[in-house]
Amino acid sequence: MATRAIKRLDQLATPCLIVEEEPLRANLQTMAAALPGLKCRPHVKAHKSTILAGMQVAAGHRALTCATPREALGIAAAGLSDDVLLANETVDPIRLAALASTKARITIAIDSDETVRAAARAGLTDVVIDVDVGLHRCGCRPEEAARLSELAQRGGLNVRGVMGYEGHAVGLTDRGERERLTREAMELLIGAHSEVGGEIITAGATGTYDCNFWATELQTGSYLLMDTAYARLGLPFRQALKVLATVISVSRSWAVADCGLKALGMDHGLPAIHEAAVWRCADEHVIFRPSGTVAVGEKVQVLPAHVDPTVAYHDAFWIVNGEDVIDRVAIDLRGW
Amino acid sequence: MATRAIKRLDQLATPCLIVEEEPLRANLQTMAAALPGLKCRPHVKAHKSTILAGMQVAAGHRALTCATPREALGIAAAGLSDDVLLANETVDPIRLAALASTKARITIAIDSDETVRAAARAGLTDVVIDVDVGLHRCGCRPEEAARLSELAQRGGLNVRGVMGYEGHAVGLTDRGERERLTREAMELLIGAHSEVGGEIITAGATGTYDCNFWATELQTGSYLLMDTAYARLGLPFRQALKVLATVISVSRSWAVADCGLKALGMDHGLPAIHEAAVWRCADEHVIFRPSGTVAVGEKVQVLPAHVDPTVAYHDAFWIVNGEDVIDRVAIDLRGW
Repeated sequence: MATRAIKRLDQLATPCLIVEEEPLRANLQTMAAALPGLKCRPHVKAHKSTILAGMQVAAGHRALTCATPREALGIAAAGLSDDVLLANETVDPIRLAALASTKARITIAIDSDETVRAAARAGLTDVVIDVDVGLHRCGCRPEEAARLSELAQRGGLNVRGVMGYEGHAVGLTDRGERERLTREAMELLIGAHSEVGGEIITAGATGTYDCNFWATELQTGSYLLMDTAYARLGLPFRQALKVLATVISVSRSWAVADCGLKALGMDHGLPAIHEAAVWRCADEHVIFRPSGTVAVGEKVQVLPAHVDPTVAYHDAFWIVNGEDVIDRVAIDLRGW
Repeated sequence: MATRAIKRLDQLATPCLIVEEEPLRANLQTMAAALPGLKCRPHVKAHKSTILAGMQVAAGHRALTCATPREALGIAAAGLSDDVLLANETVDPIRLAALASTKARITIAIDSDETVRAAARAGLTDVVIDVDVGLHRCGCRPEEAARLSELAQRGGLNVRGVMGYEGHAVGLTDRGERERLTREAMELLIGAHSEVGGEIITAGATGTYDCNFWATELQTGSYLLMDTAYARLGLPFRQALKVLATVISVSRSWAVADCGLKALGMDHGLPAIHEAAVWRCADEHVIFRPSGTVAVGEKVQVLPAHVDPTVAYHDAFWIVNGEDVIDRVAIDLRGW
């Protein structure tokens, strides 16, 4: 990453994503200290960038997690990791064959006879058994894990262990409840692992990074950039990501900036603006009531509620240090 | 557009956008019959595609509407229209200069001294006065329109008329209320126009295409592809756009397909699936309860709740006719 400014913040065309360098580096260090090396398998889906993934590898986390074939193929092509987990199911034969032909070791999640057969047919070698530990999304029932593992092994696949995502716990602001649901989820996963075996028990998320004591590795994504939803949990990670916008209209009691539904993931609700009340968003607008005065042309920094679907709208991060823009980082792993 | 199949629907990698050719053509014809020629100024923001914009021009609508400089520059570069309205404010001097240097006639919305000055400084020649007619987003107060028009003319700008978006009315399912709010909004706009003059009174949307009788032209976007929010209004436009997804996991009482928050605009709520209840979405997943049985590997068609932010996640539409895929249409005007 460059150390000298390439332009100033107010020279950036808006809307665009900015990432503050200091909290970015602090987040990297905090996680590397808490979950060093292979204890943390960073999730590429949160930033979709080979450059940011490379920073996570440089922080000691050699194994990475991906949500899409595109992410896994991009990480493999960049030579960033020799242990890439595609923590999701797919039965697409063309994408599975592409994954099987990379030089990196790709491990894929399977949770059904069909996903086992598709992985084997494509020539993949490594799988984890995805177990539903209470989120009720993908994953087999815990009692099916052993049968699927045997099926996979009969199909020539190497079963590296089990995966179970405590997604129903990770966002809870009540820490006691988060801990309780995580423990219950991991009891199910440990039970499945006792039948399946293997060196990996992979789970988790940023929200349970300090209360999931049972997984051998945690798939943490949001910690690096953060969002307002995770900020409510009181974790030691700081909000590094913002959408920079320009005020384009000012009325009696509200203002409008040029950052809307096509620049922000909205599933977690409205974004936030410091010292302002955000009223609503439209395709290209955020409408807010500032606590002081703002002028047309002024820049505002908009804090997204959910990092992942926000990032997926953009093609680059600008790394900033105060008013200095020090680098442009491509979001090169978008799409599927 | 091709007439022979280039592949079959089940060969498409998912998630992806599909557009059914027959309702697409029907929507084009229905609008061209209701608002022929320049009565309709189609809004490019809904599809962000020069190919689909070209179909709207071929249907008789030579003048187009854009929401971003990128869209307007792309339409101008494609030589599609000699009358492009950028129906939004911007003060970005670089983008304004680029707009001023195109061969197309670009008209830009202004609603403040700052936006007038920025347009004049960049060398633009044509503007409309954007008036807040009740949506409370951009737009000057009606009583300011005359002063801004004079300011613009003193700055050497040609004021083509007024713009006012009745966005607070367009989505109302109660037709009487939609008509009432549209009439009240247009009374404000007509009042401003009586002071400003000019040949253009531009307003509207798909939702008021048949009840806004006062504007000289209507900016209709959603009619071409449609979404479930607009479907509730009982308009004669049919849902042509869907997200094609693949079932990747099936459990006792729910199934999961590979189309999530990064493939769907979520501000209008959950998408819909025919003969299924959609429970929720995650980054790469839609979780639903099918009324019958579904199998891993099956394709499902997901109806987005809001067309514009859904399209902005994708790089192409596949045009389909039943099970035949007949063309790929690039979404080439993404970004800003």
